[in-house]
Amino acid sequence: MSRFRKCRDFSRTLCEPLQPEDYIIQAMPDTSPPKWHLAHTTWFFEQFILRAFKSDYKTFDDNFSFLFNSYYETVGTFHPRPKRGVLSRPNIQQVWEYRNYVDTAITELLASANEIDLATIIRLVEIGTHHEEQHQELLLMDVKYNLFSNPLYPAYLPVKSQKPPTNRETSSIRWLDLPEGIYDIGADTSGFCYDNERALHKVYINGASLSHRLITNGEYLEFILDGGYQKCDLWLSEGWQFIKDNQIEAPLYWIATGDRWQEFSLHGPKSLDLHAPVCHLSYYEADAFARWYGARLPSEFEWEALAKRLETKGNLLENLQSALQPAAPRNHRGAQQFFGDCWEWTASAYAPYPNFHPEEGALGEYNGKFMVNQYVLRGGCCLTPAQHIRATYRNFFPASSRWMVSGLRLAKES
Amino acid sequence: MSRFRKCRDFSRTLCEPLQPEDYIIQAMPDTSPPKWHLAHTTWFFEQFILRAFKSDYKTFDDNFSFLFNSYYETVGTFHPRPKRGVLSRPNIQQVWEYRNYVDTAITELLASANEIDLATIIRLVEIGTHHEEQHQELLLMDVKYNLFSNPLYPAYLPVKSQKPPTNRETSSIRWLDLPEGIYDIGADTSGFCYDNERALHKVYINGASLSHRLITNGEYLEFILDGGYQKCDLWLSEGWQFIKDNQIEAPLYWIATGDRWQEFSLHGPKSLDLHAPVCHLSYYEADAFARWYGARLPSEFEWEALAKRLETKGNLLENLQSALQPAAPRNHRGAQQFFGDCWEWTASAYAPYPNFHPEEGALGEYNGKFMVNQYVLRGGCCLTPAQHIRATYRNFFPASSRWMVSGLRLAKES
Amino acid sequence: MSRFRKCRDFSRTLCEPLQPEDYIIQAMPDTSPPKWHLAHTTWFFEQFILRAFKSDYKTFDDNFSFLFNSYYETVGTFHPRPKRGVLSRPNIQQVWEYRNYVDTAITELLASANEIDLATIIRLVEIGTHHEEQHQELLLMDVKYNLFSNPLYPAYLPVKSQKPPTNRETSSIRWLDLPEGIYDIGADTSGFCYDNERALHKVYINGASLSHRLITNGEYLEFILDGGYQKCDLWLSEGWQFIKDNQIEAPLYWIATGDRWQEFSLHGPKSLDLHAPVCHLSYYEADAFARWYGARLPSEFEWEALAKRLETKGNLLENLQSALQPAAPRNHRGAQQFFGDCWEWTASAYAPYPNFHPEEGALGEYNGKFMVNQYVLRGGCCLTPAQHIRATYRNFFPASSRWMVSGLRLAKES
Amino acid sequence: MSRFRKCRDFSRTLCEPLQPEDYIIQAMPDTSPPKWHLAHTTWFFEQFILRAFKSDYKTFDDNFSFLFNSYYETVGTFHPRPKRGVLSRPNIQQVWEYRNYVDTAITELLASANEIDLATIIRLVEIGTHHEEQHQELLLMDVKYNLFSNPLYPAYLPVKSQKPPTNRETSSIRWLDLPEGIYDIGADTSGFCYDNERALHKVYINGASLSHRLITNGEYLEFILDGGYQKCDLWLSEGWQFIKDNQIEAPLYWIATGDRWQEFSLHGPKSLDLHAPVCHLSYYEADAFARWYGARLPSEFEWEALAKRLETKGNLLENLQSALQPAAPRNHRGAQQFFGDCWEWTASAYAPYPNFHPEEGALGEYNGKFMVNQYVLRGGCCLTPAQHIRATYRNFFPASSRWMVSGLRLAKES
Repeated sequence: MSRFRKCRDFSRTLCEPLQPEDYIIQAMPDTSPPKWHLAHTTWFFEQFILRAFKSDYKTFDDNFSFLFNSYYETVGTFHPRPKRGVLSRPNIQQVWEYRNYVDTAITELLASANEIDLATIIRLVEIGTHHEEQHQELLLMDVKYNLFSNPLYPAYLPVKSQKPPTNRETSSIRWLDLPEGIYDIGADTSGFCYDNERALHKVYINGASLSHRLITNGEYLEFILDGGYQKCDLWLSEGWQFIKDNQIEAPLYWIATGDRWQEFSLHGPKSLDLHAPVCHLSYYEADAFARWYGARLPSEFEWEALAKRLETKGNLLENLQSALQPAAPRNHRGAQQFFGDCWEWTASAYAPYPNFHPEEGALGEYNGKFMVNQYVLRGGCCLTPAQHIRATYRNFFPASSRWMVSGLRLAKES
Repeated sequence: MSRFRKCRDFSRTLCEPLQPEDYIIQAMPDTSPPKWHLAHTTWFFEQFILRAFKSDYKTFDDNFSFLFNSYYETVGTFHPRPKRGVLSRPNIQQVWEYRNYVDTAITELLASANEIDLATIIRLVEIGTHHEEQHQELLLMDVKYNLFSNPLYPAYLPVKSQKPPTNRETSSIRWLDLPEGIYDIGADTSGFCYDNERALHKVYINGASLSHRLITNGEYLEFILDGGYQKCDLWLSEGWQFIKDNQIEAPLYWIATGDRWQEFSLHGPKSLDLHAPVCHLSYYEADAFARWYGARLPSEFEWEALAKRLETKGNLLENLQSALQPAAPRNHRGAQQFFGDCWEWTASAYAPYPNFHPEEGALGEYNGKFMVNQYVLRGGCCLTPAQHIRATYRNFFPASSRWMVSGLRLAKES
Repeated sequence: MSRFRKCRDFSRTLCEPLQPEDYIIQAMPDTSPPKWHLAHTTWFFEQFILRAFKSDYKTFDDNFSFLFNSYYETVGTFHPRPKRGVLSRPNIQQVWEYRNYVDTAITELLASANEIDLATIIRLVEIGTHHEEQHQELLLMDVKYNLFSNPLYPAYLPVKSQKPPTNRETSSIRWLDLPEGIYDIGADTSGFCYDNERALHKVYINGASLSHRLITNGEYLEFILDGGYQKCDLWLSEGWQFIKDNQIEAPLYWIATGDRWQEFSLHGPKSLDLHAPVCHLSYYEADAFARWYGARLPSEFEWEALAKRLETKGNLLENLQSALQPAAPRNHRGAQQFFGDCWEWTASAYAPYPNFHPEEGALGEYNGKFMVNQYVLRGGCCLTPAQHIRATYRNFFPASSRWMVSGLRLAKES
Repeated sequence: MSRFRKCRDFSRTLCEPLQPEDYIIQAMPDTSPPKWHLAHTTWFFEQFILRAFKSDYKTFDDNFSFLFNSYYETVGTFHPRPKRGVLSRPNIQQVWEYRNYVDTAITELLASANEIDLATIIRLVEIGTHHEEQHQELLLMDVKYNLFSNPLYPAYLPVKSQKPPTNRETSSIRWLDLPEGIYDIGADTSGFCYDNERALHKVYINGASLSHRLITNGEYLEFILDGGYQKCDLWLSEGWQFIKDNQIEAPLYWIATGDRWQEFSLHGPKSLDLHAPVCHLSYYEADAFARWYGARLPSEFEWEALAKRLETKGNLLENLQSALQPAAPRNHRGAQQFFGDCWEWTASAYAPYPNFHPEEGALGEYNGKFMVNQYVLRGGCCLTPAQHIRATYRNFFPASSRWMVSGLRLAKES
């Protein structure tokens, strides 16, 4: 259970740069206040483990289930998501106490549970830990959005000097081939995975090539300068409506300052690095860029087929000394950036695999009920805890979402 | 070109039961007034054929391109869709004149075009004819919705006597097997198809069984009586929100009258036929029913793989003496109702096939730009012109749409 | 009862220029289709007279009370106002039959009623007639808005030649004095009036001057050219929000065509007549113009105190040969345009007079329940039936309404 | 300037019961976070005094004008009101520093200003002080609403014991007569007042009687039990829509708990005191109650004519040891509760008095631009600083507002 312990500690580490006022903010309905993340992940352990398995367990506060249940309808009613930012109480001190209380109880339970329950408990603690890792990424995404919504553009973690990116080169795109044929997609039973990664099954891929690296800010800027946001034939109909309704003319965190661009980051505003991958794109923008380039987005199967050949490492979240932002690819022509840097939009709608079986009970609501009108993203990003990602991992967002670190890799028929 | 002629005449036939006032109504943004359908399908021939190929062609009215362009952004600006019902002029008499004018010009063009153009023109007239057939179904769907929005529940086409459905039986569901393996999906080059049915390509199917017939009103009523609309664990999260926000507790045209149900049809309200297929379901409802049943929706590939073995015939729209409503399956256990009766929701998001190439020019907007956040329906319905459907045909609607004749067939892992 | 007869006939006269399709249109929630006006005014006689007093009366159609009740909650439920445009049936022929049916019954009732009821019936027929006169104006207002919503800008009543306005002069504004003192406001008991014009009561006026004529298009154009719509300090806060949200930069029916203005009228688009009164202003615009001018809007009491000295005549609706549009004032300096041309916004919120008593029963909903968040307009307009207006008449609209013929007269402290 | 000093200190006193997290919350667009009130009132002094008159003044932070300008368009752009709750920075510590910085500068300026400026500066400090007093009431109103939005119902200021209200009696309503005649309304030039209280002018009152005390919770409960919220004929049309759309069935802070009512207060939830005045009513509810009772709301002139005879004292905000809630009237029959307890809705739309002149410059936006679609309330409430109220004071809110302490007194024709 060292991973549990480490994970719980890491949540606290991530909050160290926050000021008390930052814990409360919810700048849009999709985001949640940091305090809420800290309490919700704790409630998850309380609800699914302590209440179920610890016979003498006394809940910390009976109101917390209403306040900190996210969306588990079968568990009971819950506070409406867009209203998470109106709660000043419990205050942050009480939430830290709640965390300690639950951590102690979990430790006790693991020490005292009978053998019959223990395997289930361990499995649930594992799920709860992975769940909290997901929320660590969400917490950073949300903090970024919240701070960006403040005209002062405050930094989450200021860095002493932001050197302007040196004069590098980005290698031109090279295409990685994926021959036509049958591929195994999904997770086998050897390690931890979510229910949505199963069952392992066969997919016929009609042959494709994927770009060896992510698309850069520089390449995306060319798209903008070529009038990409003004040419309706590059866009899905819904996407065209989306950018017109919301007056979108650049990725989410780009700030036009006179004749040059800045990008808002967790370190505050900085000059746009043309060699770093473009990120904070909606599906519509990723799709339009690909069409402009004469390519398309990869399917999640194409992506996974290639990624399974690679080591699961990259620019991921290791500690708070990390840079917390996508980085330029190295100047070589091999497969790069499959893991870390940016989540990669795929052309695949989020759907169940053959023989998909949701987790038992309320935990079955974790993934399955969202399998409509969402698109799959793959590979993790610079805010994803390093141990959290794998080749079969399926993240998903609506096509209009932009506050996660979302970029793109190109594909074409081979 | 007899199909062109026949198609244009059939649009007029479909309007014969309408009163002048009916031509103008648009009861919700998704529907269009009948007058608009008549003019838009005519504009399609004028815009893509006459303007392009008839050198001396004089447009009937220069304003019509603005008024009757549906969504072709590359052709020019257009009247906003939700405002189609505020146009009393051109009146219906002028629209009939417009139709005659364009028909004459098309006939002249076909007689006089040079050989180089002729193949293209014939191809475009073919597309325009298929396009108008689509709108014939839309016109009936829209008329049905418009009349239903009137508390008087007027009938489009009254029938003399509506005998209560006799005491029949519906055979219990039998499962049609589809063995695991590689299947050819999409249209070959032998006949007419839309761009979205190509390219022909291979798909690996992991083995499945599909029900031999559609789900009936009687079966759906059991779902309702079992509390199907009150059990959140049966629903996709978005679907649960959808039925709660819109207070949906039954299919679209069901009318609760005391202790029994009526169903609104193009012949007016009638007793619910428990043996006829349930229709006017959203994707969410079809999906929830399948989950309640312990099954799932088929993928569009599974559906097509089975349908390609069958004759393309069924309860489709042949003439106005047809019944215009889904019919009960015959009491046998073979594959039934794949074509006609109801469009069948599939679990497949609408997406491009490998090597998809949109039509050239503005016609490329016909299909490709809608390939996001929509789901594929297969097989045609009782309002689909009989010659219009084929095994590779892909219809698509958002998950929340209910005014098309949409039902479901079940699938399960085999 | 010749006024009843004449009024009912006049409604038919007003519909003569309409095409069948025009009867159905509802271009925004505030307007109603002409067919609805014809049926609703008829329902008014049926509901409040025939059902109450004609013992053997058989309603024409039981559904009509639901369809054609406007807002009388105490009478029963009714069809939602924004949905009046989705009703193709009853068709217009059936509505004419409804009108004849009710007219015959009213005539019979008047001939046969006992003496006890007769006075009440006559009073109610009188109210119903005034009610229908109101709807005659509404019908024309609504037709104007509906036709303007059509990009073809069709005319309700084309005129053979629209001579450009000749080179006239408008006399400069002269101020009519109203000395400080006590004035009698409201209607005495000598003639017909609505309940909202009573009781006659005293008001102290602190001394004011009113402009001798209405503000012209030419004067309003100066306001526009001076940046009136861009200067926030001229506007009420709510008004500033209103014009920004709705991108309003000119009166409702002004059409910018190159470097000059046209104005849409019931005769179609025409050159803006700089000498005619500006109309189709919201309260916010009238108020902003007055502030820009260094003046203010008059109170309804100031207006009435002056108007009571004048003859009740002006450019009102007499017949369909009338011009149906506001006209330039004559070139003299006496009080002008108090009646007819444009309704005049006053600074007075619509509120009950001292000792206000609503009509008995459901008719009490006619006026009283709207006495909040509306502003009083006085004097009638070119679309108001001539016999309908009087010095004590109180019309009222929300501050954001612009589709009635609303203009302004200035006031200042004397 | 002791009032200035005392006022600034009192704002700090009011914040003592707050926890750091409470400073940030904005539970609906109409409310503001306490931190914002503290900064905005400070900005008012900086903007209108220090920047204008202190030659060497250096602004504390140039961004604060954007962040803390409320609505002064002529001063510059400002942060949108509904987004005040997304600002975690400046944090509360920085806001206290801002306050100290500005207070010091004001003190210096008063000590050093030349004689020519001094009178103006003193006048502006006076306005700024009254402005801050207004915000002290708003801060408490907003805190109450924010805490109520939290399902935990936390108390702003817990009290040790909340004794259930003892068994008292409320004297029955007695009517205070106001004879017909001319009355002086508005403020003379003898003391401080806002621009909207001037000019002093004459109003003719047609004779009225006002109830000697406010309506109680007990009386309002009778209205509820008599079906007041279900009888459409008691309501203004807009009010009926309002309560149906928002499912309103009781005053804002009433909490139904089984078979009895609680009321949320700044001391947390407590048993409903039937003898205390009903408060947190919308205009619509106050108006409906009056109609139910067979009475009406008084005009602001009737109220003022009576109040001018009385001493300006009552249950107002003196210090934090006050009860912070409306109190039961004493059991006598004289004029009571004109000042304090609850703001009293009047039937008067908020409008300029004759010879109204807004303050010079941007301060002219303080009052004048809100004079549309709002209703006047009179008399102050238990959260109004005691020295802030006077007989001529005009408060105003939209008819739908309920989060201020708003109750009612009845009137009737005499």
